[in-house]
Amino acid sequence: MDVSTSLDLLWVIIAGILVFFMQAGFTLLEAGFTRAKNVANIAMKNIVDLFVGAISFWAIGYTLMYGDSINGFIGSVSFFYMEPTDMHNLFYQTVFCATAATIISGAIAERAKFSTYFIFTFAFTTFIYPIAGHWIWQGDGWLTNMGFIDFAGSTAVHVMGGFAGLVFAFILGPRIGKYNSDGSSNDIPGHNLLQAVTGVFILWLGWFGFNAGSELAITGASANKVAMIIVTTNLAAAGGGLAALLTSWIRKGKANVSMTLNGSLAGLVGVTAGCAAVNPLGGLCIGLISGIVVVFSIDIIDKKLKIDDPVSVGSVHGIVGLIGTILVGVFATENGLLYGGGFELLKIQSIGTISVALWAMTITSILVLILKYTVGIRVTQQEETIGLDETEHNPNYIVKQEETIIKSGDLELSNYEK
Amino acid sequence: MDVSTSLDLLWVIIAGILVFFMQAGFTLLEAGFTRAKNVANIAMKNIVDLFVGAISFWAIGYTLMYGDSINGFIGSVSFFYMEPTDMHNLFYQTVFCATAATIISGAIAERAKFSTYFIFTFAFTTFIYPIAGHWIWQGDGWLTNMGFIDFAGSTAVHVMGGFAGLVFAFILGPRIGKYNSDGSSNDIPGHNLLQAVTGVFILWLGWFGFNAGSELAITGASANKVAMIIVTTNLAAAGGGLAALLTSWIRKGKANVSMTLNGSLAGLVGVTAGCAAVNPLGGLCIGLISGIVVVFSIDIIDKKLKIDDPVSVGSVHGIVGLIGTILVGVFATENGLLYGGGFELLKIQSIGTISVALWAMTITSILVLILKYTVGIRVTQQEETIGLDETEHNPNYIVKQEETIIKSGDLELSNYEK
Amino acid sequence: MDVSTSLDLLWVIIAGILVFFMQAGFTLLEAGFTRAKNVANIAMKNIVDLFVGAISFWAIGYTLMYGDSINGFIGSVSFFYMEPTDMHNLFYQTVFCATAATIISGAIAERAKFSTYFIFTFAFTTFIYPIAGHWIWQGDGWLTNMGFIDFAGSTAVHVMGGFAGLVFAFILGPRIGKYNSDGSSNDIPGHNLLQAVTGVFILWLGWFGFNAGSELAITGASANKVAMIIVTTNLAAAGGGLAALLTSWIRKGKANVSMTLNGSLAGLVGVTAGCAAVNPLGGLCIGLISGIVVVFSIDIIDKKLKIDDPVSVGSVHGIVGLIGTILVGVFATENGLLYGGGFELLKIQSIGTISVALWAMTITSILVLILKYTVGIRVTQQEETIGLDETEHNPNYIVKQEETIIKSGDLELSNYEK
Repeated sequence: MDVSTSLDLLWVIIAGILVFFMQAGFTLLEAGFTRAKNVANIAMKNIVDLFVGAISFWAIGYTLMYGDSINGFIGSVSFFYMEPTDMHNLFYQTVFCATAATIISGAIAERAKFSTYFIFTFAFTTFIYPIAGHWIWQGDGWLTNMGFIDFAGSTAVHVMGGFAGLVFAFILGPRIGKYNSDGSSNDIPGHNLLQAVTGVFILWLGWFGFNAGSELAITGASANKVAMIIVTTNLAAAGGGLAALLTSWIRKGKANVSMTLNGSLAGLVGVTAGCAAVNPLGGLCIGLISGIVVVFSIDIIDKKLKIDDPVSVGSVHGIVGLIGTILVGVFATENGLLYGGGFELLKIQSIGTISVALWAMTITSILVLILKYTVGIRVTQQEETIGLDETEHNPNYIVKQEETIIKSGDLELSNYEK
Repeated sequence: MDVSTSLDLLWVIIAGILVFFMQAGFTLLEAGFTRAKNVANIAMKNIVDLFVGAISFWAIGYTLMYGDSINGFIGSVSFFYMEPTDMHNLFYQTVFCATAATIISGAIAERAKFSTYFIFTFAFTTFIYPIAGHWIWQGDGWLTNMGFIDFAGSTAVHVMGGFAGLVFAFILGPRIGKYNSDGSSNDIPGHNLLQAVTGVFILWLGWFGFNAGSELAITGASANKVAMIIVTTNLAAAGGGLAALLTSWIRKGKANVSMTLNGSLAGLVGVTAGCAAVNPLGGLCIGLISGIVVVFSIDIIDKKLKIDDPVSVGSVHGIVGLIGTILVGVFATENGLLYGGGFELLKIQSIGTISVALWAMTITSILVLILKYTVGIRVTQQEETIGLDETEHNPNYIVKQEETIIKSGDLELSNYEK
Repeated sequence: MDVSTSLDLLWVIIAGILVFFMQAGFTLLEAGFTRAKNVANIAMKNIVDLFVGAISFWAIGYTLMYGDSINGFIGSVSFFYMEPTDMHNLFYQTVFCATAATIISGAIAERAKFSTYFIFTFAFTTFIYPIAGHWIWQGDGWLTNMGFIDFAGSTAVHVMGGFAGLVFAFILGPRIGKYNSDGSSNDIPGHNLLQAVTGVFILWLGWFGFNAGSELAITGASANKVAMIIVTTNLAAAGGGLAALLTSWIRKGKANVSMTLNGSLAGLVGVTAGCAAVNPLGGLCIGLISGIVVVFSIDIIDKKLKIDDPVSVGSVHGIVGLIGTILVGVFATENGLLYGGGFELLKIQSIGTISVALWAMTITSILVLILKYTVGIRVTQQEETIGLDETEHNPNYIVKQEETIIKSGDLELSNYEK
């Protein structure tokens, strides 16, 4: 292999390692945004989807996604893929798949059954994610053929994970105490903002690998392109954070921490589709728009749609991923609306991202409903009140249940349900 | 672009990503060293200076620093810099700028107004940092022309941030309860040493990018130089930590955790200027000296100068940055005092770093005094007592204020002020 | 230096930085698995072995390990090694040494004297680790000559650290309250599982550098090999975690968090020896076996051998490192039992890893017994009860001791010892 190919391979591996680290970022973010009694459960979900994803995406998913296209819809599967010249790509795509899976864990936090999540994440990494991924990234997928641009996955990863999570959260129903009988919504504040901030720093860091690594090369013309993507991504994250900070500050009179964090993630999600198609100024604009959108989206999903999404996955990844994908049609320096490209790209982008959102929502609904009426998807009221760390993960829990915890549980339940 | 140039670019990008991660390191360090009630505020300051720095350094600061020199004092500004062949350097310099800015947040922790910090950090990243950076690193700056050596920024970053922070902390005044009426100083211990240690590991990690990345290349003769810098940096950090540990152990009879952490950061700060000019043994010596200096510097600033600097930014970054820069004149294998170079380099190093320290202190004083008499720089006594997480960032705070918190606030105040 | 050599050097440096980060991973893991009162002490041990290792391995250990072989047993020492063309290797090997040292800190947590650990870690990094390392990795060592395969150090690092830790823990004796008078074992649960999970993510991340970096090159044929090792490592970690999760789930009815974490580390430890000799499927199998083994090993060491090893170092690193090294003889695609290679390699692997385990146990026993009867190895009962953060690291502790803490200490002691 010549030096140039080795260098490209090194870059893909490093970028993959950065994306891998995002698992830790999501874990800290989700743990920080939820209650202490469910922290170990959240963390377990995040590490177990990595276990499952690593194995099932390798065993089946990768070739279902990247195998020779069958009519632009799915790839031809080769089980237990071990082509020696392609292992760096397998690794890189595996961590993308695990990222998409882990996004979902946030939406269903604090009330979903661990065993059910385990099954769901297996299905998600084996075929749900790979199929839509085939449409977008295999090269002969129907969305690629249409001219759809989703460079690093605003749609393939974030719309997939975000809308799957949103639907799962909707079917699961809100946490106990989230909504009052008059329909108004209560804040259930997270227990540790420092963890959440640390999570965001790690996610932002990982996103350099996510976006700039998607170039899959760093030699020749790719070198400056990689650097440009890094700058564009950085500006979008900064813009998203700043926009959400100022929006929430103006609306509520205080510099809201969780909105700021969601804003900077929104900036990152928003720019992911177009990071190679827009310039740094375009990236900043997409970031600013994403940061404003996310503040209102969170409000609407929480207060109007009344879907309880504890870490705002539906807004940050779903809605913003969709908006960000569409905005490529506006800010792309080639064929974008602002650069004289007319509405054609805008149309393609809209069709593509909406199709994937519909796929994510439909297939997730079907699967989750099947799970609901077979193994069950939600812990009991008592378990939820006590906390999933205790009831799902402590082997001594059963004993305790008989003794005192029912009482305190009842007590808390009655408080919540008043 | 040829492979060699791509490889250099990759190294600059990776180093930049490592330096980026230092934001998380500083956040954890500062949060660990302060009280739980101000953790979210500290974290917000650290992420917001990244937002502001990313945008303002790109929009103005970078070319003010690296644009064609106007008499060696400032660069010619090009707004919204987007030169495609230079984006990796922009990114790398941006994270340096954000690092310098974030250092300051530690010195003013637990009492500065968030809105004022926001304004200050905008000024710092737009022109305060870039102007001194121009003198040192642009190539035609007056300090460069004089022969000043500050390879990776003991002066450009750490003296800048450290002395700006120290002056800001001085003007701001000490936290409530820090000094007694007889002038003696109380320890206000941090709330989580594990966070601080984690922060130090991340900072140390990032510093490999900070120091060795400053070579800006890894091909040809740079390869071995990069590796040498990494070893030298590692030894300095180890030496600094060890020296501070032993110094504090001998002085107080216990292996002091925060002194040990400060010592290893001091080793890193100290070696930053000379990491490419000294050999590994020289690096170890600079680390050892820095580790001892920092213990006494912290004592003097706290007990003699009575400046309340909660995370010892003035000592770790300011004083040690200054000493480390001067020590290049002693340990540089070319022209250093110990290698027969006489006092010439020592003199140049001293003039250079002191000039930058004076610039940092003067401009910060002016700006902070303007802010003090316009928007105000400090939260109220009540807000400080309650904690900035609640008063600066909780949108529901205003309501609570009317009810019970004033009482407990008064209570705490009276305890402190007794 | 040509581009190809620079690229290899860059990969070694990046891999070294990833391995460096494992120090933070171990710190978080160990802190999470122990009690809050000993967190700063654990963290101090982890950072101090890095200080000591960085300096002593550079000053002596590296050349004792890699210097010209004296009869295959030790290398010829050059003090304060500064060969400019070899600094990247020095750095890479230094972080390996520090990793081995830091493993030990987990086994002796919550009761060992800090000063004694300081001395022990100096001896470990100066000669204990380098000598066995010479046998395995110098090129002319007696184990290399025998055909022993330990690509990235299941034996050189993990068996060394794991068995040294186990013996140290045995001589030290169990923590107060760990075993009842009837010999039954009490769980002493860790205080923060989220820290432990974060630690595992960081360790897993670092392990990509640990295993794939051990190729020491990325150009030519090494490129695809590096990528293959990364995939194999990732599958082993996933397999180990999954196997331990399911094993503990079946045995105890709950998805146990700490077993899951130990399982994924076991997968990583197990595959470290053979990651370049087996294929991804073999890696997954080794991971699955390691994950099952670790669950039973932890039980046996805790309940049968009654060695109190707070973070299960003896099982995760010692036993699994040994098993993983031996399994190379089964799964190696060249000369492995399953690939028709017969029992020869299996025999060599067993002799090699057992020899190193014996070296680790013998020399550690001697050294720790000397320390026991000279400076002492264990804190007092009172200090242990109060917690090492207070008694080993708080300079004000002595005063407090006179006043009230003795009482509460006694109280706790009497509870424990009833």
